[in-house]
Amino acid sequence: MTTSTATTRILHPAFRAKLMSADAAAALIHDGDNVGMSGFTGAGYPKAVPQALARRMDEAHAAGRPFRIGMWTGASTAPELDGALARANGVDMRMPYQSDPACRERINKGEMEYIDIHLSHVAQYVWFGLFGKLNTAVIEVAGITEDGHLIPSSSVGNNKTWLDQADQIILEVNSWQNPGLEGLHDIYYGTALPPHRKPIMLTQPQERIGEAYFRVDPAKVVAVVETNHPDRNSGYAEPDENSQAIARHLMDFLQQEVAKGHLPPELLPIQSGVGNIANAVLQGLNEGPFENLTAFTEVLQDGMFEMLKSGKLKSASATAFSLSPHVLEELLQDLPRYRDRILLRPQEISNHPELIRRLGLIAMNGMIEADIYGNVNSTHVMGSSIMNGIGGSGDFARNAYLSIFMTPSTAKGGRISCLVPMVSHVDHTEHDVQVIVTEQGLADLRGLSPRQRARLIIERCAHPEFRPALLDYLQRAEAGAPGLHTPHLLQEALSWHSRYLAEGHM
Amino acid sequence: MTTSTATTRILHPAFRAKLMSADAAAALIHDGDNVGMSGFTGAGYPKAVPQALARRMDEAHAAGRPFRIGMWTGASTAPELDGALARANGVDMRMPYQSDPACRERINKGEMEYIDIHLSHVAQYVWFGLFGKLNTAVIEVAGITEDGHLIPSSSVGNNKTWLDQADQIILEVNSWQNPGLEGLHDIYYGTALPPHRKPIMLTQPQERIGEAYFRVDPAKVVAVVETNHPDRNSGYAEPDENSQAIARHLMDFLQQEVAKGHLPPELLPIQSGVGNIANAVLQGLNEGPFENLTAFTEVLQDGMFEMLKSGKLKSASATAFSLSPHVLEELLQDLPRYRDRILLRPQEISNHPELIRRLGLIAMNGMIEADIYGNVNSTHVMGSSIMNGIGGSGDFARNAYLSIFMTPSTAKGGRISCLVPMVSHVDHTEHDVQVIVTEQGLADLRGLSPRQRARLIIERCAHPEFRPALLDYLQRAEAGAPGLHTPHLLQEALSWHSRYLAEGHM
Repeated sequence: MTTSTATTRILHPAFRAKLMSADAAAALIHDGDNVGMSGFTGAGYPKAVPQALARRMDEAHAAGRPFRIGMWTGASTAPELDGALARANGVDMRMPYQSDPACRERINKGEMEYIDIHLSHVAQYVWFGLFGKLNTAVIEVAGITEDGHLIPSSSVGNNKTWLDQADQIILEVNSWQNPGLEGLHDIYYGTALPPHRKPIMLTQPQERIGEAYFRVDPAKVVAVVETNHPDRNSGYAEPDENSQAIARHLMDFLQQEVAKGHLPPELLPIQSGVGNIANAVLQGLNEGPFENLTAFTEVLQDGMFEMLKSGKLKSASATAFSLSPHVLEELLQDLPRYRDRILLRPQEISNHPELIRRLGLIAMNGMIEADIYGNVNSTHVMGSSIMNGIGGSGDFARNAYLSIFMTPSTAKGGRISCLVPMVSHVDHTEHDVQVIVTEQGLADLRGLSPRQRARLIIERCAHPEFRPALLDYLQRAEAGAPGLHTPHLLQEALSWHSRYLAEGHM
Repeated sequence: MTTSTATTRILHPAFRAKLMSADAAAALIHDGDNVGMSGFTGAGYPKAVPQALARRMDEAHAAGRPFRIGMWTGASTAPELDGALARANGVDMRMPYQSDPACRERINKGEMEYIDIHLSHVAQYVWFGLFGKLNTAVIEVAGITEDGHLIPSSSVGNNKTWLDQADQIILEVNSWQNPGLEGLHDIYYGTALPPHRKPIMLTQPQERIGEAYFRVDPAKVVAVVETNHPDRNSGYAEPDENSQAIARHLMDFLQQEVAKGHLPPELLPIQSGVGNIANAVLQGLNEGPFENLTAFTEVLQDGMFEMLKSGKLKSASATAFSLSPHVLEELLQDLPRYRDRILLRPQEISNHPELIRRLGLIAMNGMIEADIYGNVNSTHVMGSSIMNGIGGSGDFARNAYLSIFMTPSTAKGGRISCLVPMVSHVDHTEHDVQVIVTEQGLADLRGLSPRQRARLIIERCAHPEFRPALLDYLQRAEAGAPGLHTPHLLQEALSWHSRYLAEGHM
């Protein structure tokens, strides 16, 4: 902490007066508190206070004292937050999304309660009071203006709600964040609780409807901590053969949809999940025939930046960055070129059903498995263990123009088929899943009955190794099920998963 | 058909010139056509043409000629429509909702394709072209005005879309429908395909945003048929003990929610599914402490009319009537008193995610079964056979302020538990189900992790006969499952259903 840094980033004296160490700030958080942290897909999470808090938890536990908190975020964070608190066994309840190995292990051992809700629902549920009082907000910002407004960091997530709802606020001012972020954000202050809600007057993905800063009540700010630490920005793998094949099938499909007049030549605003397959699809779009694309999505990842750079993508609205270090550097160096084409919004807006439906999104998300009737499992491994959480996939799939789910056809070196007779957990029902893509092919399920869907999914999407067994299941179900709308043999429907658990292969 | 009736109800000469018999009109429909029919929950469906069409189908089939159509409606209809065409085996593909025994039998025998989609999605999917060309619309109206507008009947459903999309239109003018219906409807003409969609400027349930009539291109009208035939209005059962208990639990819960400040004293707009339990809940609301209620729902049923009569309910917005004959008579006799408090809208508006989210509905729907983790099955019997369809329950549950699902705890004289280890089909996922109510009690699942939900559902909702077995399953799953987030024993998860199929009891 140096005066000069504070002078640069913290321009309001009331906030400078609250400068303290991370340890001193963490001491303001107590056992049993609910704490709302910033952070979304490894961007914009607090870097110092959570680790100081974890140390205090360790000390308390070593002394036989309880110290656990309810921990709320935007979405996934980083080892310095989810990892540190999970290792300290300091989280009693976690919501709404996580992807940390230590955190996942605690949940699946039954040592941490995890509530897996749609990302668009988090803010309103907290406003409704469903999770109890929010005691403390710990929010990373890029700076504090002269008039006391907060310059948001590399993710917005639920920060507006945490700042509004918390009894006390701890700010981390991270001088690693580029000062050029100022002015990039669009923080909408028009939400309300029913019966006072109004239409959200956004009709184009890149429209500004809010303010560039977070409002904050200085009286609630109990600590300001300076940090200089990078986001957890990890690279993406070069697209493998499977991802490239998925991307090709999807490009062919989108071209056919344009040819049929189902989509305009510039498509409709795209939403893309995060990960290597999604990145390959974005690369496919970047090399494809479509021009003047737009994005209304959760996360701005490498593939989207490449599209912004090439000009294929006119603009991108998201709630967080999730960029490789070298891509982020490139973006920040050339920020003036991009700043009027990139917006970061609160996740209640980036994922809002009203806007997703109105804009008519093309939603593309990964999954763990699908069944032959088109039900999708996005969250559970073999029915019992959580992987990450539903995230925003439900927000988008439920209200999009087109909802697409993607996966390689097999996993674990071919020992698992990602197309199964019945999924072991349902996150997206047959009513919400329109297109399934694997490296084998694409199944357009729209306008088809369950048995028609089953034949198409088996034929187009299943791996040839598993295709005969799936068809055999379907045919025996058609012969032996008590009804032929969605024929199932219930004693056998989950046997593929049971076999994997018992024998290590499906 | 008499001139005087025609003079009374059909005021525009171009339409009078098209008067013909139902048989002559039915002859304009051909094998392979897609036909959009009016009708929603037994109200406002065409009464004569479908039966004439069924006779033509029987004749064709007897002569060895194929004659089957794609049949699209608002929702369920009546024996004169779904029943007649199903008995004639004249429906190749049916969507989006049915509740007719003959129709259900065809589907479950694999003799009719059925596509079970959210009711709010139907209109847009047809506009997108996903079901192919709509050849003919067969629409019941209450009359035709001097300037050629159509007075909607006792349901609106998808009629606007059918009239806009069909190549040719057959109108049934039903003089049984009360002329006082004129002016009651609110037909919104502001929808569009993306990227041209605008905010729907409705902020109160009873707001008018449209027109009282359907627009129609007279050049597309190929036949006008006169009928005088009542809707399929069947009575509701007097609430039984279970329904009354469910209503009591729900009233207690709503009062607690008001006391906690989660709901305003006048609650939020209510949506109620159709049926005897829903009717009992409405009766409970009518006798309860809440005043100045509003409804934004699919169907206006007896219980809601009683609430309008008592003044407990200020206003009701729906897409269809579903009233007992004597209640309908009372409403129609006293129509001036109610006409500014009742609105019938297209189902794309009554069920629109944008409006459901904005208004913050309290959604109350029936179900077939729920599992201990809060997943709900609304459509399938024992995993394979369709009952009716998802209807609007997904539209409401997915975007409501509060989503409540109700069922007696057992069925078939106690041989079936409606709370099971794992549902045999998922229509509403754990992420979308907030409250489960049976006659045993109410489980408020908000803010709870899966295992917390399981204990609450078993304790509060399951029948005492099945409670120990459910708890035993949960405990053994907690001991033996590969993960403890949602512990399941996959070999056993569906065994309750298998046992019922094999032995006639769970």
